Amino acid sequence: MEKKYLFSPGPTMLPPEVLLKMAEPIMHHREPEFEKIFEEVREGLRYLFQTKNEVLIFTSSGTGAMEGAVSNILAKGDKALVVRGGKFGERWGEICQAYGIEFIPIDVPWGRAVHPSQIEEILRSTPGIRAVYTQASETSTGVKHPIQEIAQIVRKYEEVVLVVDAITGIGVFNLPMDEWGIDVLVSGSQKALMLPPGLSFVALSDKAWKAVERSDLPKYYFNFKKELKSAQKNQSSFTPAISLIVGLRESLKLIRKEGLENVFLRHQKLAEATRAAVRALGLELYAPESPSEAVTAVKVPEGISGQKLKNMFFERFGITVAGGQDQAKGKIIRIAHLGYYERLDMIMVISALEMLLKEMGYAFELGSGVKAAEEVLIGLR
Amino acid sequence: MEKKYLFSPGPTMLPPEVLLKMAEPIMHHREPEFEKIFEEVREGLRYLFQTKNEVLIFTSSGTGAMEGAVSNILAKGDKALVVRGGKFGERWGEICQAYGIEFIPIDVPWGRAVHPSQIEEILRSTPGIRAVYTQASETSTGVKHPIQEIAQIVRKYEEVVLVVDAITGIGVFNLPMDEWGIDVLVSGSQKALMLPPGLSFVALSDKAWKAVERSDLPKYYFNFKKELKSAQKNQSSFTPAISLIVGLRESLKLIRKEGLENVFLRHQKLAEATRAAVRALGLELYAPESPSEAVTAVKVPEGISGQKLKNMFFERFGITVAGGQDQAKGKIIRIAHLGYYERLDMIMVISALEMLLKEMGYAFELGSGVKAAEEVLIGLR
Repeated sequence: MEKKYLFSPGPTMLPPEVLLKMAEPIMHHREPEFEKIFEEVREGLRYLFQTKNEVLIFTSSGTGAMEGAVSNILAKGDKALVVRGGKFGERWGEICQAYGIEFIPIDVPWGRAVHPSQIEEILRSTPGIRAVYTQASETSTGVKHPIQEIAQIVRKYEEVVLVVDAITGIGVFNLPMDEWGIDVLVSGSQKALMLPPGLSFVALSDKAWKAVERSDLPKYYFNFKKELKSAQKNQSSFTPAISLIVGLRESLKLIRKEGLENVFLRHQKLAEATRAAVRALGLELYAPESPSEAVTAVKVPEGISGQKLKNMFFERFGITVAGGQDQAKGKIIRIAHLGYYERLDMIMVISALEMLLKEMGYAFELGSGVKAAEEVLIGLR
Repeated sequence: MEKKYLFSPGPTMLPPEVLLKMAEPIMHHREPEFEKIFEEVREGLRYLFQTKNEVLIFTSSGTGAMEGAVSNILAKGDKALVVRGGKFGERWGEICQAYGIEFIPIDVPWGRAVHPSQIEEILRSTPGIRAVYTQASETSTGVKHPIQEIAQIVRKYEEVVLVVDAITGIGVFNLPMDEWGIDVLVSGSQKALMLPPGLSFVALSDKAWKAVERSDLPKYYFNFKKELKSAQKNQSSFTPAISLIVGLRESLKLIRKEGLENVFLRHQKLAEATRAAVRALGLELYAPESPSEAVTAVKVPEGISGQKLKNMFFERFGITVAGGQDQAKGKIIRIAHLGYYERLDMIMVISALEMLLKEMGYAFELGSGVKAAEEVLIGLR
C-alpha cells in the first residue's frame, strides 16, 4: 500500500474539507454569492494578519506579491536595504535589481538570523534608503529573523518602510502587524493557509500606503492601489483563482475555530518536538540559535548524502521532505511543520528518519528520536 | 430545486472529471511525478496552440501573461500599435501606458472588427513600431478580428511582432500559430480550457524570442526567458498552481480526445445555433459582421433593461450570462458557448431567454428561438 505525505515547506498537506469545497462546480466571480465569500475572506485575512487594514489578494505565487512590494513601494532613485540570509532574501535583491533599484545587502551567513543592530547602522549611515526588505522565516535555512526588534528600529525612520516576507511566517508564529509596526506583510496560500499554491497576499500599513503614493515604478497586474479599490467592492481587479478563494474561506474558518493563539502554540510545540528528536538522534540543527517554527533544517551527518536521504524518504515512505538549496545542497534536509499538521504527523516523519538513518549506517539508538518528541508532546491536546 | 449554469465568457462550466482530479491531495511540484504531468501538459499545450515552440505557463489571470507580452517584448522607446475595439483592446493600451510605451491606437467602433488595411497603413507610415497588439476574440463585444489577414501584413515587417490575446480564442476557433505567423499568442485557463481561473499561457515565435533578447523593460515574475529555461526542465520558476496544472492535464486530454477540428466545429455550430435563435426572436446581434464563436452578444430590445434581464436569468433560472461593459452597459447581454458546452446547453439558455423576454412584455412567438437553433443542430453529433 502506498500513502503519500508532504513535509515540505510548501506545498503542504491540505484538509479534506478544503479539497472538497474546491471540487464544487465553479461559480462566477461577479455574482453576489461570490462577493459574500470575498467579504468573509477579507475579514478572515485581517484576523490572520492582525491588522485593521485591507489584505490584498493576488492570483500568483508568493513571489508575485513580493514583486508588487517593490514595484508599488519604491520610486526611481530610491535605495533599499535587503537582508540576505538565504534563497528568499536573495530574491528581494533580484527583484530590486530587475527594477533598477540600488540596494545595500546585509549578507547574513546561512543558518543565522540578522542582528537588528546591523540594520540600524546602515539606516543611520546611508541616506536615500526607503525600504528594508527581509523574511520573517527564511524557508531555505529554517531561520526566524527578529521582526519585532527590526520593526522597533525602522519605525524611527519616517521615510523608511519595513517589508516582511512572511510566506512561511503568517499563521505559524505571532506577527501582529499593526501592534509591531510592520509596514508591508506578504504571504502565500500553500503554506500555513492549507491551500494549494496560486494565491498571494499583501497588507500595507498607513505609512506604506503613503509610499505607494510616490511610487513611480511600472506595474499593472500587481497594482496595489487598483486592487485596494476593487477589494473594497468585494471584487478583484482581474478574474481571481475562484476555486482557491472558495477553499480559502474554509481554511480561514479552520484557523478561526482553532484560534490564532492555539495555532501558534501548536506550531511551537511541533517545532520543539522535531528539534528535540533531531538532537536526541545526535544530529545538528542548521539554525540552532534562531530556528523557525515553520520548518526544521537538519544537518545530514558526515558520510551520508542529503540528496540520497531525501530521495529515500520518498521511495521508501512516500514522504516529501525538502533538501538544501544552493550552498546548502546535499548538506541538509528540511522537515516542515506548518499548516495542517498535528502531533502524530511529526512522530511519523521522525520515525521514518530513524529507520532510514539506521539503514544508511548512522549509529544511534533506534526510537530515541521519537521518545524525545513524545516528551515534548505528551499531555498536549 | 436550484441548479446553477454558467453562460459567461469565463469562468465557464467545468467537466466533473477535471473537478475531481483537482480535489486529490496535493503533490509536490519538484517530485518526478509532477514533472511527468508537466511534460505531458507542455506537449498538450503545443498541440492546442498548434506550435512547435514552448507554451509558457504562469500562475495568474490572463492579464498577467498580457502584461508579460508587453514587458518582455518591447524596449524603452519602442512604439506599439494597439487595436482597441473593446474592453480588452483597451487593456493592451493601459499596459503599454503603465510601462511608458507610446502607442498608436486604432479605435474600432464596439461591435466591429478591425480592418487589416488600417494596420498596414499605420505600419507603413509610422517608424519605430515594434509590436501590434490585438485580440483574436474581443470578449466584451463578441467580435472576432481577422488574425490571419493581420498576420500576413505584420510578417512583412521584420522588426514588428504580432501579439494576439486569444484568451477566448484558443480552443474555440482555428488559430494555427506557426502556420499563420502569429508571434505571441496569449491564453487563460478559465475559458475553452475548461478549468478554474488561475493559469495564463503564452507562446512565442522565433521572431518574438528575438524581440525578447532586446527587451529592457523591468520584469521578474512574468519573465519569459527565465520561464522558458524552467519549462525545458519540466519545472516552473516559482511554485505553480499545482492543482490547476493537474486539472489542465485532464482538460487537455479531453481536447485531444475530441480532436481540435471537432472542437472548432462544435463551437462553430453552437455559435451558429445561438445566432440563428437570436435572429428568429427578432433580436439584433451586437457584432453581426464578424461574430466570435466564443460568445454571442445580443442587443436587448428597446424598453427592456439589459441589467434587469441579466439579473432575471440568475434569479429565475440560476443562469449567469454576462451583461455589457462600459459603453455597452445595459444594452447587451452576452451568452458564452466556449469550453465544456454542447448542443442541449444552448437549447436551455435560449429557452430561458424566450421565457424571460415573454414575461417582460417583448412580443414574439414562443418557441421560435429554440426551433431555429434546432434547425442548425439537428443531425449533428
